[in-house]
Amino acid sequence: MVAVVGGGQLARMMQESAIALGIHLRALVEADDGSTGQVVVDSTVGEASDASAVRGLSEGADVLTFEHEHVPQDVLAALSPDLAVNPPAGALLYAQDKLAMRERLGALGIPCPRWARLDTPQDLQHFGDEVGWPVIVKTPVGGYDGHGVRVVHSAEEAHDWFARSTPLLAEEKVAFTGELAALLARRPSGEVRSWPVARTIQRDGVCAEVEAPAPGLDPEVARQAREIGERIARELGVTGVLAVEMFLVEEPRADGQGRTQRVLVNELAMRPHNSGHWTIEGAVTSQFEQHLRAVLDLPLGDPTPRAPWSVMVNLLGSELADPTLGLAGAFSASPDARVHLYGKSVRPGRKLGHVTVCGPDLAAARAQAEAAVAALRGE
Amino acid sequence: MVAVVGGGQLARMMQESAIALGIHLRALVEADDGSTGQVVVDSTVGEASDASAVRGLSEGADVLTFEHEHVPQDVLAALSPDLAVNPPAGALLYAQDKLAMRERLGALGIPCPRWARLDTPQDLQHFGDEVGWPVIVKTPVGGYDGHGVRVVHSAEEAHDWFARSTPLLAEEKVAFTGELAALLARRPSGEVRSWPVARTIQRDGVCAEVEAPAPGLDPEVARQAREIGERIARELGVTGVLAVEMFLVEEPRADGQGRTQRVLVNELAMRPHNSGHWTIEGAVTSQFEQHLRAVLDLPLGDPTPRAPWSVMVNLLGSELADPTLGLAGAFSASPDARVHLYGKSVRPGRKLGHVTVCGPDLAAARAQAEAAVAALRGE
Repeated sequence: MVAVVGGGQLARMMQESAIALGIHLRALVEADDGSTGQVVVDSTVGEASDASAVRGLSEGADVLTFEHEHVPQDVLAALSPDLAVNPPAGALLYAQDKLAMRERLGALGIPCPRWARLDTPQDLQHFGDEVGWPVIVKTPVGGYDGHGVRVVHSAEEAHDWFARSTPLLAEEKVAFTGELAALLARRPSGEVRSWPVARTIQRDGVCAEVEAPAPGLDPEVARQAREIGERIARELGVTGVLAVEMFLVEEPRADGQGRTQRVLVNELAMRPHNSGHWTIEGAVTSQFEQHLRAVLDLPLGDPTPRAPWSVMVNLLGSELADPTLGLAGAFSASPDARVHLYGKSVRPGRKLGHVTVCGPDLAAARAQAEAAVAALRGE
Repeated sequence: MVAVVGGGQLARMMQESAIALGIHLRALVEADDGSTGQVVVDSTVGEASDASAVRGLSEGADVLTFEHEHVPQDVLAALSPDLAVNPPAGALLYAQDKLAMRERLGALGIPCPRWARLDTPQDLQHFGDEVGWPVIVKTPVGGYDGHGVRVVHSAEEAHDWFARSTPLLAEEKVAFTGELAALLARRPSGEVRSWPVARTIQRDGVCAEVEAPAPGLDPEVARQAREIGERIARELGVTGVLAVEMFLVEEPRADGQGRTQRVLVNELAMRPHNSGHWTIEGAVTSQFEQHLRAVLDLPLGDPTPRAPWSVMVNLLGSELADPTLGLAGAFSASPDARVHLYGKSVRPGRKLGHVTVCGPDLAAARAQAEAAVAALRGE
């Protein structure tokens, strides 16, 4: 039995794979009728920060895992030392605390944006003066999808955050030309398998679209990105799925002949990730099945793509009362659309589902995926 | 909301697709902890023959459907006439009553084995004398997977069945060289999509293995088989998935040049079927998603294969206390194995799961699927 903390769409999609493999999934969810609670019989309502709830969830489980990073370290420390926890607390720390992550990746020599620990507004002033304004200021813990992140043009613009809690993390605002995600899984006994590096497209700080493999990426840079992901997994002791979000930076060559590409690590997520939803149809083994296999320390599956291109487009909000009302339109508009809806009530901008289209032509796949999403949005 | 009668592996796999599409599935199951009850939150224990249980299941549903043929006609007749029932009672009849099916297919001129309605042992004697012994005797209603079917070498061997209930159905024992399944889906508004015809291999009257597309099948005969399936769906008003099991008969040509192939219809199943499990990975749209789309009258998905060959092998019984204990061995033995376990307790010969392998080489796929099943059997 696999115990998972989280009641959203990731645990919901994990359940699809758990059903197929005959694995009993038990979930600690925010609401019985939420995305996961709707589809996991053995689900309990409780908070990820409630030590007794997480202990209860883990009772009798073969392994405890997570769909998000918000289980506090003291809750994990209070668990039985005999319980398998994947990813382990010591790895999860680096997905929870962006400052700890920067310090660790820096020590490993992994390419990152320039960054600084900020204890005072003066630290921010010095950092901005050094790397150039504006800079990115982040709360080390608790941010996701654009929360806890601010672009500031002066130290004053972060004064309220300094007043609330320190340290903060500052990062240079990278002039990136694209964003990438290196996705892989690692099992406790050491096996690592990587999917092809994907391109992610964010809008308003939220992932809008993913293309795999990343179009236009130099194969050597793709190899470097994959190796960075695998090295992070090994060095940090990550188990389960790891997504390493990266900036792609392109610069004209010194000799004027074309451009060079390089990558800088942006964020880590130690769980199935939006950048890997395309693997459900687009790869031999999906990230959800692979996560279950990895956390149970089973041999990992083949991450090879099943089509030349996969495009995933998120459904963010809808004009429809319920996006299932758009299924007929989506299937009519896009015969190749693979539709995933998360059973969530509609709110503006909320991630309600996604559509993947696989095929031989990237532009055609993108057009079909976008048309299906438009239908699900009621457009 | 889709209401489904049945608590076995078919409704379980339907739930995987329902989760993906954001469709609420409600199930009437034999046991809360059975294959479906484990994974459908909104499941109720009850009998398919209990009119009030089926009525309760259907309340508020967009459509009622089935994972088996065992809902009596009077139970269906007692439902609200406003409820969509797919397949409708008038079609389901032909999957419930093999004699009614033979009469109807005979009237449509669809190729079938020779058959006779038997009211007395004398009818059987005459039939056997005419087509040659042994012959197959079937109880028209209630048989599946070899139950309710008997090979008799004389009329005496069916005396006990005549004493119990008549009419019975007699069929010639076809000297077939293979068995096929034509699988398709039809929606109420008329759209029909067929998957490639598959070869099925039975052992002891139970499906053991399926290969798709059927190897060695004359393309013209494959086309005929598909057309027979589609004609049956249209003429009988079938909605949802229809599986038409067929015998393949091969005879030397009159001119001595090779052999001719022809097909005879054996059985009908109006639901996702064991012969279509390969479609989960092997086709763009699986039979489970397609069944949901069809019964909801949504546009049907693409049934095109995703690989040159797909081989599905059933897991029938296991030496292991729980076949999930064999997952590590199965994945080690067969890197390409897609494993499906049904959450059932082990009993000799019981269908506990299946493995599909897709790939460019039929023999290699078969070997991998069989190796994975051997591991899940604890061999």
